[in-house]
Amino acid sequence: MTKHVLVLPGDGIGPEIVTEAVKVLGTLNLDIEIDSALIGGAAVDATGNPLPDETLEKARNADAILLGAVGGPKWDGNAMEQRPEKGLLGIRSQLELFANLRPAILYPQLAEASTLKPEVVSGLDILIVRELTGGIYFGQPRGIRTLDNGEREGYNTYVYSESEIRRIGRQAFEAAQKRGKRLCSIDKSNVLEVTVLWKEVMDELAKEYPDVELSHMLVDNAAMQLVRAPKQFDVMVTGNMFGDILSDAAAMLTGSIGMLPSASLDENGKGMYEPCHGSAPDIAGQGKANPLATILSVAMMLRYSLNEIAAADRIEQAVEKVLDQGLRTADIMSEGCKLVSTEEMGAAVVAAL
Amino acid sequence: MTKHVLVLPGDGIGPEIVTEAVKVLGTLNLDIEIDSALIGGAAVDATGNPLPDETLEKARNADAILLGAVGGPKWDGNAMEQRPEKGLLGIRSQLELFANLRPAILYPQLAEASTLKPEVVSGLDILIVRELTGGIYFGQPRGIRTLDNGEREGYNTYVYSESEIRRIGRQAFEAAQKRGKRLCSIDKSNVLEVTVLWKEVMDELAKEYPDVELSHMLVDNAAMQLVRAPKQFDVMVTGNMFGDILSDAAAMLTGSIGMLPSASLDENGKGMYEPCHGSAPDIAGQGKANPLATILSVAMMLRYSLNEIAAADRIEQAVEKVLDQGLRTADIMSEGCKLVSTEEMGAAVVAAL
Ligand SMILES: CC(C)[C@H](C(=O)O)[C@@H](O)C(=O)O
Ligand SMILES: CC(C)[C@H](C(=O)O)[C@@H](O)C(=O)O
Repeated sequence: MTKHVLVLPGDGIGPEIVTEAVKVLGTLNLDIEIDSALIGGAAVDATGNPLPDETLEKARNADAILLGAVGGPKWDGNAMEQRPEKGLLGIRSQLELFANLRPAILYPQLAEASTLKPEVVSGLDILIVRELTGGIYFGQPRGIRTLDNGEREGYNTYVYSESEIRRIGRQAFEAAQKRGKRLCSIDKSNVLEVTVLWKEVMDELAKEYPDVELSHMLVDNAAMQLVRAPKQFDVMVTGNMFGDILSDAAAMLTGSIGMLPSASLDENGKGMYEPCHGSAPDIAGQGKANPLATILSVAMMLRYSLNEIAAADRIEQAVEKVLDQGLRTADIMSEGCKLVSTEEMGAAVVAAL
Repeated sequence: MTKHVLVLPGDGIGPEIVTEAVKVLGTLNLDIEIDSALIGGAAVDATGNPLPDETLEKARNADAILLGAVGGPKWDGNAMEQRPEKGLLGIRSQLELFANLRPAILYPQLAEASTLKPEVVSGLDILIVRELTGGIYFGQPRGIRTLDNGEREGYNTYVYSESEIRRIGRQAFEAAQKRGKRLCSIDKSNVLEVTVLWKEVMDELAKEYPDVELSHMLVDNAAMQLVRAPKQFDVMVTGNMFGDILSDAAAMLTGSIGMLPSASLDENGKGMYEPCHGSAPDIAGQGKANPLATILSVAMMLRYSLNEIAAADRIEQAVEKVLDQGLRTADIMSEGCKLVSTEEMGAAVVAAL
């Protein structure tokens, strides 16, 4: 049966990295049909809407979605509803892509790229499971209002129901079962009631996963421990806002964020796949961007949504191979390696397949 | 005129580190009277209340407060109102200690302690200005409620008014004026309305401080940049929750969190001073704790609240001297240095004065 993949190039370097990833996907000779649509700033410019109805419709009908990146200074002055990010948040929410899987892996070939000492990060392999369609990102009420005394006040609501916590918790426990069987849940239960409930639900779930060792850590300590001794973690699970911060910190520990893919899954394994790095408007259109995170996102897509495990493995091996060959885009360049462009890197992966 | 300092030893290693800091203060021959009171778990055990009225009364009447640390596993199961942390949050709020100054400084003598490469952190000197009496820590409504469908929901409110933002903003701009004149304000303005207002107020304030260069950064990017290139920052300003996370990450970059003091100030320069590290219950009572962060907190107290600048300088020089002498508590121990106890370290600082 033909699978349908929707490609959303987006803004900045989005189009160029997605182009290479699509070439890689095409090389695999799978029964996949590819369509594309507008999102983010590109969609705002063309239609006035960061998530046009047509895009949402196509996304609903696809088996999986590959996203480049959204955002850029061009739209920074826009009102909230007309910001590129609203397209991304909208598609996550509308498709209920609540489970964001963000691996932070240090490739041995790139160990030097990290700002941390080699003994602290070598072999690093953390998976952060971030709740993506709830929490303070989507909580109501929200806005800016004028108080009786005439001054303005901004407000947002951090909210989670038990069922929201339970479904992301399950994803995390199951991910831990397939890995090192250790799960660390991150909260701020000494201050925030919403995370007291979070912690309780995780403790309840733990009974159903006796093979997984559950621990809890406060978010401020987690930020410290990621810097102090990141290899202590296997899988971490947390809410939308803490996950945003901690997963970026964890990604940066590797020093090669241009290598890191991510998946955002719904209850049925349908997912959107995107590189962890952003739209990097400063280098857009210059052939400097690293397409490997997007290519590795395709591998995640094959594994989690399209059930093409062998093809996923092949891509990951091809990426290892080009690294072994010493090919590097500017972001991961080091002495003795060969500097290549976005397109050359894509072509090298295709050749390695 | 006699100045009054209230000492709150608190829990875990609190009492032992505060003892050494008080000895140092006593050595200076200043006209200071010292009183002490209960807070945190110690206060819960003695009175059932983490912030007894007597403590609050004494704190109101003091010119400055020196706090050890609060919390420990003994009270982890307590309901929110009977947790040690409530004492700390209560005193911050009741005394309107809204400006939390948290320096992250790497002492050259301890450069090796960092998990980051020397070239990334050597000479690190960041000041994080964190709002401490507002934001999601104190926002209403908050709690855990049962929904119509029978499941529970946890909720907290992230809220800031213009005047709250303005007063912490002023503290940050003024701090920047006295340092490198660069201020980076951290928000999540692409998602959270409350931080859109935050950013706006910072931009308005910038007009009054033309000698300070203001920039803005998203919190996820800030977490990355602290790992990637922390020396790009001079002063950072942010809300209570983001400040909690980022200041701990920044502190840990130094690898020697046992060295870092903090100040929490009200509008008039009255303040509470405490080490950045916590109550470390695992090593409490063993003479292993590093008293230097608390001793350096005394220096901050002399500088910010008691107008004894020369005495503050003397303490800071004495701390440098004991480091130069190669004295180290366990947390900062390295080869070729001499391991000392909490008390020995305190005595060494007194001797160096
Ligand atoms: C672009 C932004 C809205 C988004 C987020 O905060 O979720 C991004 O930082 C991410 O992590 O995917
Ligand atoms: C103990 C806790 C309530 C406190 C906070 O979150 O503010 C601590 O982490 C701090 O940073 O002083």
